[in-house]
Amino acid sequence: MRITILGGNGFLGRKLAARLARDGVLGGRPIAALTLFDLAEPAPLPAPFPVRRQAGDVADPAAVAAAIPPGTDVVFHLAAVVSAQAEADYDLGLRVNLHGTLAVLQACRALGTCPRVVFTSSVASFSGGQEAVLPDDARQLPANSYGAQKAIGELLLQDASRRRFLDAVNLRLPTVMVRPGRPNRAASSFVSAIIREPLLGLETECPVPESFAVWICSPRSAIAWFLHAATMDTAPLGLDRGINPPGRSATVAKMLQALEEVAGAEARARVRFVPDPEIQAIVADWPAAFEADRARRLGFAEQEPLEELVRAFIAEDLEATRRERGL
Amino acid sequence: MRITILGGNGFLGRKLAARLARDGVLGGRPIAALTLFDLAEPAPLPAPFPVRRQAGDVADPAAVAAAIPPGTDVVFHLAAVVSAQAEADYDLGLRVNLHGTLAVLQACRALGTCPRVVFTSSVASFSGGQEAVLPDDARQLPANSYGAQKAIGELLLQDASRRRFLDAVNLRLPTVMVRPGRPNRAASSFVSAIIREPLLGLETECPVPESFAVWICSPRSAIAWFLHAATMDTAPLGLDRGINPPGRSATVAKMLQALEEVAGAEARARVRFVPDPEIQAIVADWPAAFEADRARRLGFAEQEPLEELVRAFIAEDLEATRRERGL
Repeated sequence: MRITILGGNGFLGRKLAARLARDGVLGGRPIAALTLFDLAEPAPLPAPFPVRRQAGDVADPAAVAAAIPPGTDVVFHLAAVVSAQAEADYDLGLRVNLHGTLAVLQACRALGTCPRVVFTSSVASFSGGQEAVLPDDARQLPANSYGAQKAIGELLLQDASRRRFLDAVNLRLPTVMVRPGRPNRAASSFVSAIIREPLLGLETECPVPESFAVWICSPRSAIAWFLHAATMDTAPLGLDRGINPPGRSATVAKMLQALEEVAGAEARARVRFVPDPEIQAIVADWPAAFEADRARRLGFAEQEPLEELVRAFIAEDLEATRRERGL
Repeated sequence: MRITILGGNGFLGRKLAARLARDGVLGGRPIAALTLFDLAEPAPLPAPFPVRRQAGDVADPAAVAAAIPPGTDVVFHLAAVVSAQAEADYDLGLRVNLHGTLAVLQACRALGTCPRVVFTSSVASFSGGQEAVLPDDARQLPANSYGAQKAIGELLLQDASRRRFLDAVNLRLPTVMVRPGRPNRAASSFVSAIIREPLLGLETECPVPESFAVWICSPRSAIAWFLHAATMDTAPLGLDRGINPPGRSATVAKMLQALEEVAGAEARARVRFVPDPEIQAIVADWPAAFEADRARRLGFAEQEPLEELVRAFIAEDLEATRRERGL
């Protein structure tokens, strides 16, 4: 197996790379080579196979082609400009999220070997808001530019799959919780911050009320879904390459309750509610619940309970985050 | 009113331009200038207002910007590579249908005055086939590259409308019948050919069986919808800029019956049934019926009866087609 991770320096890219290095195999086949590609050169990765690390712009067709060499079996396309940033800088979002995906499409097509492409689309490509429970054939009516660009990327890769240029699985990722590191420019950054920051001993602000529900998944689930999407039989997908994986609908109140159960009342007390109209305007339209029956039938794994998400962050990411942020 | 028609040399572009020249007004406001833009320089148009005619590539941002000068109120974006051609030449379809629409978006955005954009999307952006009756919120799951590119164009213009770069109405046009001129590279070309060719005294082949149903509209309806889309209040559309206008579901048998009623049995006898698997593979997925309730509520006009479509072609386009083809 020859594998490329675009966005290899991101939080999920690094977790995925580490998992591949640990396993040494994907779908039962030994990994022969891994290319990590990102805007900044990805960090070294000890692995039982050669790891190429490349810095480049995902909207640069030549750079992307170099990152997807002949013989590539699987491309994880995780490179993106996130929601609040794509809203603030329209041209940057278009360049990375649309032209970047076009560059990936053309690089895969040029191979002539129909590689598997696992594309991270997003719950932000839907609207419907707090009341909706979205069926598997729900229309994508994005209420933000990031979501629109993700829906466009899906259409491109879906059509390219029909033409056998490549073989895409478009995963509409829920909001991933708990993200390590620092708050980022995703509008959903608070979903991780209200768990992570208190565990670091820091105060944080929650921009939405306690009753606000979010469709979430753990980093562990996201990685498990990536691996499944990379190796599953895509024939049953037919024309429809979009997958709503089985996340979990959780209110902020439930998240904070899980935090309190694991880390005590003093951790929870570090979260203050400070409404942020700009963030609310973006996240208000995101649906907080999906049926996700198709994904379950296709073998995508269920979520762990919320307390488990908090414990997993403590076990796997808390110390590294503390070090990274000099705390 | 300053108006631009991109694709001004096409069949609908020419009909629209002629109608504007005849009316002299749009939405009750006098037309101050009209720009016709196409790959080949559009034909001269006698009109009570200045008409600029420009040749250029819709995927060339500078050419498109020149065709949409400051002060433009309405842009009709009809420029496209049609279905069978976009299927045969992927890169050409992508260039014209995707990058062309991006150029239109950026040119309108640069004006800073939020012009109205009437975009011709297509029934080909849906799938579902013969059995489906599509609701107004049906998901676009295109089964051909043309349809995918049209759905992408809709997403781009819809998001640009939300951002107030422009003010789009995305009309998913049914198959237009009866088209004048020659057969073209649309997979649906036969829908017009089985009426037009017999009326010209020519034999023609129908690639699908008599029972095959198509979602159609007349050129007259298409033009009426364009004018309504150009002048309607878009506030009630909200986020959703896609319109399924009230076409008509008609089988080939019904079309030929209308032909026979208007032009006699000898006209109908000029149609032979010769199955074409390539055409069938494209059109089989197109839905042949839509609910179209939203469009009716928004004031989009109903279709005339089928016989009326045949008579309108005879009255308005038969002689010109005969001349154009030297018959």
